Amino acid sequence: MTYSVAVVGGTGYAGVELLRLLAEHPEVHLKSITSRGDAGKAVSDSFPNLRGIVDQVFIKPDSQQLAEHDLVFFATPHGICMDMAPELIKKGVKVVDLGADFRINNVPLWEQYYAMPHSCPDLIKQAAYGLPELHREAIKKASLVANPGCYPTATLLALTPLLKNKLINIEQIIVDAKSGVSGAGRAAKMPNIYAEVAEDFRAYGLPAHRHSPEIAEQLSFLAGTDVDLSFVPHLLPMIRGILATIYTNLLDDDVNLQSLYEKHYQGEVFVDVLPQGHLPNTASVRGSNKCRIAVHQKPSSKQLIVISVIDNLLKGAAGQAVQNMNLMLGLPEELGITAVSVYP
Amino acid sequence: MTYSVAVVGGTGYAGVELLRLLAEHPEVHLKSITSRGDAGKAVSDSFPNLRGIVDQVFIKPDSQQLAEHDLVFFATPHGICMDMAPELIKKGVKVVDLGADFRINNVPLWEQYYAMPHSCPDLIKQAAYGLPELHREAIKKASLVANPGCYPTATLLALTPLLKNKLINIEQIIVDAKSGVSGAGRAAKMPNIYAEVAEDFRAYGLPAHRHSPEIAEQLSFLAGTDVDLSFVPHLLPMIRGILATIYTNLLDDDVNLQSLYEKHYQGEVFVDVLPQGHLPNTASVRGSNKCRIAVHQKPSSKQLIVISVIDNLLKGAAGQAVQNMNLMLGLPEELGITAVSVYP
Amino acid sequence: MTYSVAVVGGTGYAGVELLRLLAEHPEVHLKSITSRGDAGKAVSDSFPNLRGIVDQVFIKPDSQQLAEHDLVFFATPHGICMDMAPELIKKGVKVVDLGADFRINNVPLWEQYYAMPHSCPDLIKQAAYGLPELHREAIKKASLVANPGCYPTATLLALTPLLKNKLINIEQIIVDAKSGVSGAGRAAKMPNIYAEVAEDFRAYGLPAHRHSPEIAEQLSFLAGTDVDLSFVPHLLPMIRGILATIYTNLLDDDVNLQSLYEKHYQGEVFVDVLPQGHLPNTASVRGSNKCRIAVHQKPSSKQLIVISVIDNLLKGAAGQAVQNMNLMLGLPEELGITAVSVYP
Amino acid sequence: MTYSVAVVGGTGYAGVELLRLLAEHPEVHLKSITSRGDAGKAVSDSFPNLRGIVDQVFIKPDSQQLAEHDLVFFATPHGICMDMAPELIKKGVKVVDLGADFRINNVPLWEQYYAMPHSCPDLIKQAAYGLPELHREAIKKASLVANPGCYPTATLLALTPLLKNKLINIEQIIVDAKSGVSGAGRAAKMPNIYAEVAEDFRAYGLPAHRHSPEIAEQLSFLAGTDVDLSFVPHLLPMIRGILATIYTNLLDDDVNLQSLYEKHYQGEVFVDVLPQGHLPNTASVRGSNKCRIAVHQKPSSKQLIVISVIDNLLKGAAGQAVQNMNLMLGLPEELGITAVSVYP
Repeated sequence: MTYSVAVVGGTGYAGVELLRLLAEHPEVHLKSITSRGDAGKAVSDSFPNLRGIVDQVFIKPDSQQLAEHDLVFFATPHGICMDMAPELIKKGVKVVDLGADFRINNVPLWEQYYAMPHSCPDLIKQAAYGLPELHREAIKKASLVANPGCYPTATLLALTPLLKNKLINIEQIIVDAKSGVSGAGRAAKMPNIYAEVAEDFRAYGLPAHRHSPEIAEQLSFLAGTDVDLSFVPHLLPMIRGILATIYTNLLDDDVNLQSLYEKHYQGEVFVDVLPQGHLPNTASVRGSNKCRIAVHQKPSSKQLIVISVIDNLLKGAAGQAVQNMNLMLGLPEELGITAVSVYP
Repeated sequence: MTYSVAVVGGTGYAGVELLRLLAEHPEVHLKSITSRGDAGKAVSDSFPNLRGIVDQVFIKPDSQQLAEHDLVFFATPHGICMDMAPELIKKGVKVVDLGADFRINNVPLWEQYYAMPHSCPDLIKQAAYGLPELHREAIKKASLVANPGCYPTATLLALTPLLKNKLINIEQIIVDAKSGVSGAGRAAKMPNIYAEVAEDFRAYGLPAHRHSPEIAEQLSFLAGTDVDLSFVPHLLPMIRGILATIYTNLLDDDVNLQSLYEKHYQGEVFVDVLPQGHLPNTASVRGSNKCRIAVHQKPSSKQLIVISVIDNLLKGAAGQAVQNMNLMLGLPEELGITAVSVYP
Repeated sequence: MTYSVAVVGGTGYAGVELLRLLAEHPEVHLKSITSRGDAGKAVSDSFPNLRGIVDQVFIKPDSQQLAEHDLVFFATPHGICMDMAPELIKKGVKVVDLGADFRINNVPLWEQYYAMPHSCPDLIKQAAYGLPELHREAIKKASLVANPGCYPTATLLALTPLLKNKLINIEQIIVDAKSGVSGAGRAAKMPNIYAEVAEDFRAYGLPAHRHSPEIAEQLSFLAGTDVDLSFVPHLLPMIRGILATIYTNLLDDDVNLQSLYEKHYQGEVFVDVLPQGHLPNTASVRGSNKCRIAVHQKPSSKQLIVISVIDNLLKGAAGQAVQNMNLMLGLPEELGITAVSVYP
Repeated sequence: MTYSVAVVGGTGYAGVELLRLLAEHPEVHLKSITSRGDAGKAVSDSFPNLRGIVDQVFIKPDSQQLAEHDLVFFATPHGICMDMAPELIKKGVKVVDLGADFRINNVPLWEQYYAMPHSCPDLIKQAAYGLPELHREAIKKASLVANPGCYPTATLLALTPLLKNKLINIEQIIVDAKSGVSGAGRAAKMPNIYAEVAEDFRAYGLPAHRHSPEIAEQLSFLAGTDVDLSFVPHLLPMIRGILATIYTNLLDDDVNLQSLYEKHYQGEVFVDVLPQGHLPNTASVRGSNKCRIAVHQKPSSKQLIVISVIDNLLKGAAGQAVQNMNLMLGLPEELGITAVSVYP
């Protein structure tokens, strides 16, 4: 195993998913797993699925110790990585932040949505936005990668072919998104408990969810101009999976969209454009790093419906983080993240 | 108990829900329950929740026997009621059809979507569309009521105040609807089985679900002109509940929508307009005949998001059917359907 | 409405269920609802299913104010009622404790299992154990009723006919019990969150769950001697419902158990002995105050399997509390708790 | 890839799970997948999780074509394999039957439980019972392996250390087993549909489930004498996972059971004995081929509670089938089935 890596914050759902992927990755050694709260405890005592696979104990995060790795993942809430990343990067350690600290270029907007001052705004420009299908070359060269949010990943992969080709009216893009509850993190909060989530469904996050400015900024980069977006997230009574139903209008109705999407994503291992007339379901990507997309044009109309699905903890978090790591370390992009979705 | 009623097709989910409501209704006698398949079997053998409550056995449907009731409910697939209703109505029996036979006025459209010729198109005009909040007076006088579909009920109650007041652009109304799986009926089909539905989410019914023309026709009646609609239904991994997220644009942004909705539904027992800033959840209406609605205007914009929730088997089917029955029989509208949602 | 009642601790699941039942009860006025944490907040803001039904705001619990009611329910964790009940009872107020303070007569055992000293052990002897099918007359006369735990209710109703008739070997009774997660309360704890409960199943509470001594004590009262019990609770991935599978051995195999059970529970509104060969399911009692029981004898053997189901929040908590209240106030026992289980 | 294999009956849940495992197995070529009903259809059209992984179309099962493989899996209902296996075995093809045809040595008992005559009783003696932890050497030499049922696997692994060492009273073994609904197969039957399974729990299969004689026979082999068993299966509202809670009594209470179990399963890759005091949960083995076991002795008593969990589609079906294949083909036993459970 060529590279040594650490996971800071190994007790959240994205963190544990990272542990599973890294423990089985053929080219990296998962050397350190930190947790302030669980330091000293065996990882497999908290996560019995990892018994016999991950033998470490959680350790306290320590800058000097972390600097001994080739790459450090931050699977932490926002505000942690921005404090520790500068020193690590200075020492030549590569960093992947699964949190939100480097996802948004507009610093005042970030500070408004995340309700804290940003401690190293200069570093944001150096960070690559870790969506390999859009920014592969930048990621390969980056010391710091901002792993995208789960909703942004599902939305951006669905809209990129349209925006890059300037095919749609950017004044009205509606993203009706639905997520399983693991997207809310491994947090002991009342709205997350089983009896509040099961057999229930609701929208949340209105008027403005934190992923909204992230999506809008990336869409605007793609379009070369400001894009207007209505983004409404909903909470699904299930563990994993995001489905985004996106409504938009073509500028010109004479486009073969199926062929456009297939060509755009040709060769992309982790994006699967479904055949005409098929509709994706979240279970088909559960446990896998795939994004599946279908595009439907309303008959005799310019109205489009694009639907995409991902596993929020894989392509929406830990899987994409490993994909970014592979690129940053010069490894084959799909190494360790090709597992097929388990069905049912 | 003043009135005798029958339920034709008492073995589907809407049918069983009707049995429960009627068995406990103070003013009606649930005299007959038919089922071709289960004739001779005790109702409570199939539905143990009704042990001690419903003592009848299923009987074969028979026109003459049915004619001995004051009112007959058809909780049958489309195509059954239209064959039996004419004779019953001629004999002075009132009919509520929970199926689709009399929901759509445009007969060729109905025949296209339901893939069969309509056997009594003349009766359609006589049928009242059984959404009491829109058509109360017509229902009171009707011999035949077409109980609306579940998606149409959630959508129409959410949009009526806007359309009646001509406040929105009717060229782009998007209804992103999500339903629990009981909406697919009590049918032993592969897509309905637990391992295919649980922990999964998907859109379905594209390009055109059967409820789409029903919604469009009713919206057009409300608007006084043709309304364009994008309707995308999704299947939720839960038993009961519909949530519709509706996107539309105001013609003029100087409207107090909250106050408009509250006034419009003042006095309506079964429609609850939530306070500004609240968002409805399906569990809050599970087991109840209520529809809860919230209206959100995107800041500094003409874009509207209206969200409504119902229990698809109550306000979306059996509860509304009893509400219609109460009106048709001159009983208090809310009799027997005031149960509060059981939480959690 | 003849009687005024208060609910202390109206924010847990048993508490909210009580609010729903009491708000619709024809003979009581739900006058006060207390919550230390939510005082000042409208009840329906926390529980939107109660919008339009319960208009009160939560108030702080206050002994003097509580003394103004005819009856006070404590839907609180153990340790609260025993501090407040003595004064209320002295003032002539009747008390139903849904917590554990008065369920166990063996005070040292109680103190061991609940890890605190008991503040009024003398009152325990005055308390009736609130299982009406066993202690109806005592409850009618009691000022203080200890509402049984959910597991004990399901277990005791299943075993009573056997123990009262001294039919089984009391040295080996095995109770393999399974409960929906609402039994763990409305608590924001990690083991309760959706992603930890859904699609998972486990035993818990070994070596000794708190309901174990409560069950053993009551069984011993019934048997007239010490009963040995193996009690293993399990956590089901669902909201409501308890099923207990009970294994025991007949002393003599020449007994008609079906007929014994049917006779024993003849006239009991809330206990339903299923026909021979039927098996109860929790959904058949969800939302109802019923207990359904089936008894199976292993062919050519003395081995018995008794299975019982209840809704843990109704017959296992709030429903039984109202049943007790009805008895204590001289009202018809079933008043306000006859709702039929909603299916599906 | 050294060996070519076929799957007969690739459309059930065990079949699809096999396809996933075999498609990723490094030493076998999944050459043929049969289905009478879906012949001609692309496998990935039915199972979108396999898009890009399994490119075949289903073909009709044909004896001659099947004889061209090194090994053939039957993931079919009982009654199919016994008709086709003799000819294949004669031609030197190895066979693993995931169905029930060769699991029970007592032919009249088999015929009673499976309600058909057995077409090749002679072959039963040749078949190895495919529980590698018990019969590894026999499996290595076998041409025909009877893959055990899911309940038997969970039960036998839990009880083997006790029976082999003659530690328990074999006259009273109680197995209270609970299974996710995928154990009922991919069958469009009413009791399997979501609205009947979700938020419900029930026992089934009394007086005698088909896995009961299979368990009893294997336990009797282990004990060297007839073993009496009470086996009660229950249906869990979840997709995957079996948990068996087993109650039995020690003959002598002076045994270190923890150490006994740990030694017995030392070196077994797929059996994990949990540390003293831990309890296994099904999610910890979901998607993995592991069985986790915990053993608890009731304090100051001879009563034992042994709890085991497996994923019914992996260690309980397809995973164990691949484990058997590896042994039969002389490959490393764990090849292709080491995936870690995905959590949550």
